[in-house]
Amino acid sequence: MSSIKPRTMPGVLELLPLDQIAFQGMLDTIRRNYERFGFLPVETPVMEFSEVLLTKSGGETERQVYFVQSTGALEQGGTPELALRFDLTVPLARYVAEHEHELSFPFRRYQIQRVYRGERAQRGRFREFYQCDIDVIGKDHLSIRYDAEMPAVIHSVFRELDIGPFTIQLNNRKLIRGFFEDLGIADGERQMLVLREVDKLDKRGADAVRATLQGEGFGLPAEVVARIMDFVSTRSTGHDHALACLERLGRGNPTLAQGADELREVLTLVRAFGVPETHYALNLSIARGLDYYTGTVYETHLTDYPQIGSICSGGRYDNLASHYTKSKLPGVGISIGATRLFWQLREAKLIGTADSTVQVLVTQMDEADLPKYLELAGLLRSAGIPTEVQMEPRKLAKQFQYADRAGIRFVAVLGPDELAKGVVTIKDLRKQDQFEVARGDLVKTLRVEIEQAAAMKGR
Amino acid sequence: MSSIKPRTMPGVLELLPLDQIAFQGMLDTIRRNYERFGFLPVETPVMEFSEVLLTKSGGETERQVYFVQSTGALEQGGTPELALRFDLTVPLARYVAEHEHELSFPFRRYQIQRVYRGERAQRGRFREFYQCDIDVIGKDHLSIRYDAEMPAVIHSVFRELDIGPFTIQLNNRKLIRGFFEDLGIADGERQMLVLREVDKLDKRGADAVRATLQGEGFGLPAEVVARIMDFVSTRSTGHDHALACLERLGRGNPTLAQGADELREVLTLVRAFGVPETHYALNLSIARGLDYYTGTVYETHLTDYPQIGSICSGGRYDNLASHYTKSKLPGVGISIGATRLFWQLREAKLIGTADSTVQVLVTQMDEADLPKYLELAGLLRSAGIPTEVQMEPRKLAKQFQYADRAGIRFVAVLGPDELAKGVVTIKDLRKQDQFEVARGDLVKTLRVEIEQAAAMKGR
Repeated sequence: MSSIKPRTMPGVLELLPLDQIAFQGMLDTIRRNYERFGFLPVETPVMEFSEVLLTKSGGETERQVYFVQSTGALEQGGTPELALRFDLTVPLARYVAEHEHELSFPFRRYQIQRVYRGERAQRGRFREFYQCDIDVIGKDHLSIRYDAEMPAVIHSVFRELDIGPFTIQLNNRKLIRGFFEDLGIADGERQMLVLREVDKLDKRGADAVRATLQGEGFGLPAEVVARIMDFVSTRSTGHDHALACLERLGRGNPTLAQGADELREVLTLVRAFGVPETHYALNLSIARGLDYYTGTVYETHLTDYPQIGSICSGGRYDNLASHYTKSKLPGVGISIGATRLFWQLREAKLIGTADSTVQVLVTQMDEADLPKYLELAGLLRSAGIPTEVQMEPRKLAKQFQYADRAGIRFVAVLGPDELAKGVVTIKDLRKQDQFEVARGDLVKTLRVEIEQAAAMKGR
Repeated sequence: MSSIKPRTMPGVLELLPLDQIAFQGMLDTIRRNYERFGFLPVETPVMEFSEVLLTKSGGETERQVYFVQSTGALEQGGTPELALRFDLTVPLARYVAEHEHELSFPFRRYQIQRVYRGERAQRGRFREFYQCDIDVIGKDHLSIRYDAEMPAVIHSVFRELDIGPFTIQLNNRKLIRGFFEDLGIADGERQMLVLREVDKLDKRGADAVRATLQGEGFGLPAEVVARIMDFVSTRSTGHDHALACLERLGRGNPTLAQGADELREVLTLVRAFGVPETHYALNLSIARGLDYYTGTVYETHLTDYPQIGSICSGGRYDNLASHYTKSKLPGVGISIGATRLFWQLREAKLIGTADSTVQVLVTQMDEADLPKYLELAGLLRSAGIPTEVQMEPRKLAKQFQYADRAGIRFVAVLGPDELAKGVVTIKDLRKQDQFEVARGDLVKTLRVEIEQAAAMKGR
């Protein structure tokens, strides 16, 4: 026996229980905020038909897909009929198209599930990771107002996650397109190549990027490059400044003008949603890929940890599900890659191991009194207080040591004295404090302590 | 475009949002109760190395496994290196063996994740379904006391799920083994064959089963068959009756005696855990398969829906992870197959579609006042009340109709009158009631209403 080495595949994040509690807390916070904004839960199967999943002629996507075959299908050979989802957007498109006549539009859904990508194994790259998405999908039409709701949700989520100051950065694809068309760069792919070059500004420096854009590959005149560099370096520092930045772009090109109008409306409503102006800004360098987004685009950056990159991104798209339905379904959405975010925050020491979800350990003083310990635990559990009972005899010091190591805050002692007096002694391992409480007051007392602790953690 | 039919694979349960809310509510209740009893969360990757997953020489298991291959691996050919988990027990064994030195024992974990089986497509059979497991794993030794904790958790979960009266049925594998050895049926496999025959009692009737056991295949004497039929039909009707049933079995065979002693201790502690004696019983026909369990075994049955079968099962095992470690890891655990349970309860009309998680729709009376609606929604959301805002102009009657269909209970109206008076008009669509409330009292008032509604639903 014991011949097989127990191990997980590379590229997954398997956590020990206290880390799992911290991670679960993050997912719960995200879900709670999504629900507060009126998004409804959807879950889809981890597998989709390959034909449904791989509609796009995307080489990159197909190279990263995990295919699935039952034993029977494997024996028969042939192309796998099933594959694991690589994001939540394609399943959403399939879901909305499939259930179109059973849904109300605008359809507001959240989805928090794992996705799979056959990435090359690399530190910080995951083959299995959680995505936490919201989208609003309209039928035929979706007001630009929903674009302003996304920053409000992002602000609510990250304020509550309490991982430091952050800025939601906004741009608009029409604005980008109009700007480049004005410069005579009309081809979308070429625009993207230029933007990708510009994206290396921080790494390579302005001179190197300028040289590349003026060099053989791009062959852009120095003046055009200067205008590009000026455009993409636009960052607003407050609400009025953001509006002024848009004003400064002028209104020559109708596409650019439309993009600027959309951004203006979004900015105005973002403020009306109550997002403080310290938490949103224009950043005209943000593009978010070529194919998908058509209007507003978002990124979110931690002020003190720029190297982490965007922790929540998304945007507006014209048509969600053209492969599956003739209905036009415009939408806007954002996504948080929770697994990677958790990993990065832990690396940056912004989150540590959580306390246990278990709040109370009921000690065992005398084996014969076990039923009394169980009764006490039952009282606490009925009040919703997670409680563990020391089931086997063990030295008291060991019991305390166990609670301490396990991250359990309160230890309840019910010895002969306590039983005689109708009280319980509570040791608070965090405050290094100890107090006697009448049995009838126990639940109330512990609830207050637990709520105070939760409030202090900003939950 | 729109050339691909949007559809899911057979054997999955994909839900519309309001059903998903009901299902999510079930999972949340299970999780909350698991946490109350001091179980810690674990999640494992959906894929395991095939070598790790398929250690058992189990033909049935391997025939049902889904294998996974990245595009690269698929191109190279060969046996798939990865497979989807088919339960949560094998991943638990791998997890505990892999992290053995980082865990405290007894290790109490819960795990709520989906598992995958390549079942033949059939109504009510799922290829993807949630399992909700708890296990307590000891190192070298685990007290029988933990066996008594399982019925306490089961009771707590199903009381709160509020799906009608249920009984947790208990048996013990040692008791079964000892009983059959007494009858001269010492071979475990033969015991199981007999039990499987007996299991058909309800379907085939006593005469048919008796005939089979006395017939050629089994060739058991009539007297032995009579004793078997008597044994397996033992059902206790209360705590004292359960103890009396055990007494009646005598103490001849030491294995049987040990099983009876274990059951006695478990029954006594189950009562000490506060489980009402109406909710647990001996049922000596329960065996739960041959290989795995070695002591206490559990099933849970809905009194009014026996045809649903066991809704929560489990038992005690001697050694969790013998394939992966030399440590002896005895354990006890239970599992709820939540997807199948949800489907069955819905079929039995024991659960319906949930109300929306969204509690309030803020209507739009005048487009110019949108910022005021957003501000009101912000107030409610900050107080944790899920709120949707009517973002686009629409006839008021349509807005009410939408809320009603979407299962949103409260509609908040903020017209010119309300704005002038500093109040909000709330229409309660469930009570068909309407009232004005001062803005400063709005959150408090709605919280009370929402909490009352939740309390009435037994949450």
